[in-house]
Amino acid sequence: MINEGDLILLWKDDRHNYLMKAVKGRFHCDKGYIDTHEFIGKEFGDGVKTSLGLGFYLLRPNLSDMIMNLKRQTQIMYPKDIGYLLMKANLFPGAVCIESGIGSGALTTAMANFVRPNGKVISYERNEAFIKNALKNLEKHSLAQFVEIKHREINPGDSYDETDVDFVMVDVGNQYDLVPAAYKALRGGAYMATICPTYDQLTQTVFTMEEVGFTNIETVEIQVRRILVRRGKTRPEQHMPCHTGFMVFGAKVKLLPPEQKPQIESAIEQEDNEPAESPQQLVE
Amino acid sequence: MINEGDLILLWKDDRHNYLMKAVKGRFHCDKGYIDTHEFIGKEFGDGVKTSLGLGFYLLRPNLSDMIMNLKRQTQIMYPKDIGYLLMKANLFPGAVCIESGIGSGALTTAMANFVRPNGKVISYERNEAFIKNALKNLEKHSLAQFVEIKHREINPGDSYDETDVDFVMVDVGNQYDLVPAAYKALRGGAYMATICPTYDQLTQTVFTMEEVGFTNIETVEIQVRRILVRRGKTRPEQHMPCHTGFMVFGAKVKLLPPEQKPQIESAIEQEDNEPAESPQQLVE
Amino acid sequence: MINEGDLILLWKDDRHNYLMKAVKGRFHCDKGYIDTHEFIGKEFGDGVKTSLGLGFYLLRPNLSDMIMNLKRQTQIMYPKDIGYLLMKANLFPGAVCIESGIGSGALTTAMANFVRPNGKVISYERNEAFIKNALKNLEKHSLAQFVEIKHREINPGDSYDETDVDFVMVDVGNQYDLVPAAYKALRGGAYMATICPTYDQLTQTVFTMEEVGFTNIETVEIQVRRILVRRGKTRPEQHMPCHTGFMVFGAKVKLLPPEQKPQIESAIEQEDNEPAESPQQLVE
Amino acid sequence: MINEGDLILLWKDDRHNYLMKAVKGRFHCDKGYIDTHEFIGKEFGDGVKTSLGLGFYLLRPNLSDMIMNLKRQTQIMYPKDIGYLLMKANLFPGAVCIESGIGSGALTTAMANFVRPNGKVISYERNEAFIKNALKNLEKHSLAQFVEIKHREINPGDSYDETDVDFVMVDVGNQYDLVPAAYKALRGGAYMATICPTYDQLTQTVFTMEEVGFTNIETVEIQVRRILVRRGKTRPEQHMPCHTGFMVFGAKVKLLPPEQKPQIESAIEQEDNEPAESPQQLVE
Repeated sequence: MINEGDLILLWKDDRHNYLMKAVKGRFHCDKGYIDTHEFIGKEFGDGVKTSLGLGFYLLRPNLSDMIMNLKRQTQIMYPKDIGYLLMKANLFPGAVCIESGIGSGALTTAMANFVRPNGKVISYERNEAFIKNALKNLEKHSLAQFVEIKHREINPGDSYDETDVDFVMVDVGNQYDLVPAAYKALRGGAYMATICPTYDQLTQTVFTMEEVGFTNIETVEIQVRRILVRRGKTRPEQHMPCHTGFMVFGAKVKLLPPEQKPQIESAIEQEDNEPAESPQQLVE
Repeated sequence: MINEGDLILLWKDDRHNYLMKAVKGRFHCDKGYIDTHEFIGKEFGDGVKTSLGLGFYLLRPNLSDMIMNLKRQTQIMYPKDIGYLLMKANLFPGAVCIESGIGSGALTTAMANFVRPNGKVISYERNEAFIKNALKNLEKHSLAQFVEIKHREINPGDSYDETDVDFVMVDVGNQYDLVPAAYKALRGGAYMATICPTYDQLTQTVFTMEEVGFTNIETVEIQVRRILVRRGKTRPEQHMPCHTGFMVFGAKVKLLPPEQKPQIESAIEQEDNEPAESPQQLVE
Repeated sequence: MINEGDLILLWKDDRHNYLMKAVKGRFHCDKGYIDTHEFIGKEFGDGVKTSLGLGFYLLRPNLSDMIMNLKRQTQIMYPKDIGYLLMKANLFPGAVCIESGIGSGALTTAMANFVRPNGKVISYERNEAFIKNALKNLEKHSLAQFVEIKHREINPGDSYDETDVDFVMVDVGNQYDLVPAAYKALRGGAYMATICPTYDQLTQTVFTMEEVGFTNIETVEIQVRRILVRRGKTRPEQHMPCHTGFMVFGAKVKLLPPEQKPQIESAIEQEDNEPAESPQQLVE
Repeated sequence: MINEGDLILLWKDDRHNYLMKAVKGRFHCDKGYIDTHEFIGKEFGDGVKTSLGLGFYLLRPNLSDMIMNLKRQTQIMYPKDIGYLLMKANLFPGAVCIESGIGSGALTTAMANFVRPNGKVISYERNEAFIKNALKNLEKHSLAQFVEIKHREINPGDSYDETDVDFVMVDVGNQYDLVPAAYKALRGGAYMATICPTYDQLTQTVFTMEEVGFTNIETVEIQVRRILVRRGKTRPEQHMPCHTGFMVFGAKVKLLPPEQKPQIESAIEQEDNEPAESPQQLVE
């Protein structure tokens, strides 16, 4: 049963769906209105109608629904990128992670969802307007309590207040400048991530990470194409976003002296190599 | 500090990295061996050397590391697909979800990581060998306690034992046959997902979902391309996986009678339409 | 030197470029006008200015320029698809080929360019308005003389007038229906092509081709992504077309009785096979 | 009817197909042999059998077949890239074009096919072994007569012997160094092209082209994915090449002084602009 304050996705179709709370209020569209407190007591999955008879369904919002319905003041990280990040970061319920900056709260929403209830997202942001907007979004998602926002800019040479954190996300325009701060804040062997819109930011960031002390550095770009499944006319969609940014991941290590350093065999050199050996751990 | 039993990614490069526990044992490769209990007391991020001087780093495994190092008896879901699923499923710490079947435990690992400690993954699998292997993988990942495995096949017409679950994943060859069982098990307004290797499975699955009572049905395919960042010779990798399966998501609803049903405006018809209206919820 | 009647691409930038002839006329834009006969006597590559000082360059149009500047009455085939087709069709100067239908003359333009001066494109089209428009486009491109347009619909069971042609392109909504006509018109061992917007058309077309007598059937989809090269901010474009149609190619053969038929080893079965043998022709 | 010396694609399946001539010789494979002069007098499209009964079809090779069956001594340009190039170059029967270097003759084959019989490909190559191999390939394709090979390296500062050519392709590792030579050799308003495996080559090449005097510079990367159409199990292939090189095209102009120069509005700035105006040429 829907309770007062529950988050709802009012869903008509791909382009007409709205994230809202079951509270006293009225939702207007060009086909009439619905009083949103009337959702209380209904079941999720029920259909409702506007005053002029337009049907909507009451869905349980998933993370993608929340993020695509954010009130935005900035470019956001998209579900395709956040999803991959969740697989590459050391995140879990109870984890403590840092992000710079908060943007509109897209990644913050996803991380807060998965570190709760004992973990925390610590978010550094210099722009007060962004903080206000992101906080509003997080409150709507009932996730604000798992986020600590610090109204501060991290400049080159600065440190985050925290150490031994499980994950650091750097999402600012000068990614490379915050690599040393990320290094200092992380637990040994844990991952940082960043997203670079341009190839120039990407190379500078990766080279900095190598110098500062990250290894297992991976750069990816992710594309999602929707398939429109229709009786007798199933086909891929015709246009899609094809670039948001290059995502970079790397693990913090104590750099070995060069002569002992594991050699990073480049995929360039590897391509015609013999298949990887598969040694086994023999447990006595 | 690394404690006995901690999970470690012994990392040399992209192709030579091994998931293991800091327990009594010996790891062999073609450049000598390392006694794995010697990891105990070191720090994550430290470098270690084999008896013949080959260097490795001790990293904290992320979900992608775990999944790519699974002992496999089946095709697995890849991090690119699992990541996107995490954004589309109603998962969170405390969530209860079902999967059919367990395969090698790839998705199970990711879901167990994020529903713990109070949530649960209930996994139905008919093949006993798969169960044994998946269980071993989950134990290695210290996640087995958050998974309940049921050695049972769900046939067309069967029901899962559970109701009101937050998410159902159907990952079997006849996806369409398990759509009714998924519908019955789900909470209203919550999502199911499936992955279809072929177009034929995809269309049959989506049409079944529409009939049984799912809406907001989305089908996607996801591609990840790595960029090799090298001084003076940065370029994309030359070959990549370009198809694993079509992923399908949909939310359970009580189907409205046709005349009241929200019309699903297809992207086909929409493409030249005016931009979506943006109505607002007015909260008093 | 530019002569009267020469085709010119008046180019300012990616979005402001116009295909026109050096003939008496005036080109208007929001920054003034240019008298187009003033191009005569200038050199290709020169800059020109509008009455209000806006600069344009006089470029030699390539096929892509012509096709992207077509006056359209229909969906067109795009350069990415036409280019690949040129590699898969048996086209060359002197070749005779058929297309159904002409659309706006995009593919016709490319084929006419490459079969001239002794070859011919024979174009079947049922819609008179399309013919008029395509003909105008072809005349602008000075290629109309290499195209013979037949105002006729080819229905299931019909034959083209021609036989022994080098290539047949079927670009109609019911592709599968014209496969037998294409088969009859082609020289033995030569290729037909078609483009299918949907998966449903694709499968029906390929299965029909297999039955009628085509082999070496290949289906592809092609994506082109632009890279925006800018000082310090080079990156891929953010949106792109991601589906026009599935292109299908196949070669006409006299079907062997099943027991002698070369077995079409599917890529599905092949994937884990040993590498292909590489036998050699020994020429005495 | 197949005549002596005709080029034939002996086709069994995707992985077993061989380009050869109908001349005295014998083709061996692991299922017996075929005497290749026995093809003479048969029809294209006929089936033939080896001594041990393995069936093959006699197909008319298209350009893609020729190129994929080249005897290679170098990396080659692939049909996907050559096809797009044919749309962007000013090529046609009678055209004169230059390429540096010849590689294994892949692009040479395609260009020679389409400029014949009165046009010419002039190919500069410093490596004699490459020349011998490419020439052999071109002779097999009966296209050598349309190609003039110059055993010479073009160094920075050098010029090609030719001027007023319709198209120049630069396919060497230091692309940027040959941009001035390409500029001098081209007709005004005509296009050059190059292919850059890395981002570093790409940016250096584009910036050089801008300085030397090219406009309408476009960079693209092209991906081709095959769809495996099978009854009841149609799906995309699982692995594909995802990077060969970035292709760059640009048209030679006389650079205007900066204040008159058409402003190249970047796609970056354009993205939120109003749609392009569509002025018309009014022909009196």
